[in-house]
Amino acid sequence: MKAVLDHIGIAVRNLDEALAFYRDALGLPVEAHEDVESQGVRASFLPAGGVELELLEATAPESPIARYLEKHGPGLHHITLRVEDIAAALARLKARGVRLIDETPRNGASGSLVAFVHPSSAHGVLVELKQVLYTEKPREA
Amino acid sequence: MKAVLDHIGIAVRNLDEALAFYRDALGLPVEAHEDVESQGVRASFLPAGGVELELLEATAPESPIARYLEKHGPGLHHITLRVEDIAAALARLKARGVRLIDETPRNGASGSLVAFVHPSSAHGVLVELKQVLYTEKPREA
Repeated sequence: MKAVLDHIGIAVRNLDEALAFYRDALGLPVEAHEDVESQGVRASFLPAGGVELELLEATAPESPIARYLEKHGPGLHHITLRVEDIAAALARLKARGVRLIDETPRNGASGSLVAFVHPSSAHGVLVELKQVLYTEKPREA
Repeated sequence: MKAVLDHIGIAVRNLDEALAFYRDALGLPVEAHEDVESQGVRASFLPAGGVELELLEATAPESPIARYLEKHGPGLHHITLRVEDIAAALARLKARGVRLIDETPRNGASGSLVAFVHPSSAHGVLVELKQVLYTEKPREA
């Protein structure tokens, strides 16, 4: 199956301070900001070539990013690979005994389906698979 | 300054077992293998769109990757951003008070200059900057 890197998720304690480094010091542009209340997270997306860095700040104390920061501190959180057929990808991984967090795809942001592979099967890496169903209008920065 | 993601380094305990997941189960191609004796590391490069995943296995007990694995376990180790002028990038970061591991660029693999930013200034992420000086003949897988 064909897979391309879509983005890298980086957990940060403070989005504004993280933007002072990634945007202002490194000079990366910011394409979009999103506030996902249901996930207790707000995010900024910074294109770096064909992929994006996704800076993630927790907005609720029990959110996955808050729990990650508490346990590990800030840093590289996950990578997202875009595949053409997420159901086929999950079936292939399952047949090989790969441990999945999501056995079936669930709705992601912006018209996508997503599923996570468990880090124990991906050598310590939280791998998200993503299938784009349709393209929404471009996000505003 | 313009910066594009070049690759993501992933520290693994066993390269063959990691390839069983990233190459065989996920289906990513392998472009090259490298054995860098001076760094105590061997690596496989797997293209995933315009960027590569670099799987890193320690081959010496005192190598940076061996020490990383001992402290953190396997997982996402660093990201590498390609810039056009690494000296200018380092000067810009230094002027903003960013802590650098390498104050001046050093020789990297395949005709490149590289320098690392300290994770304490990059919100927990080990960021490598890279400037390509010339392109060697394509690597063999």
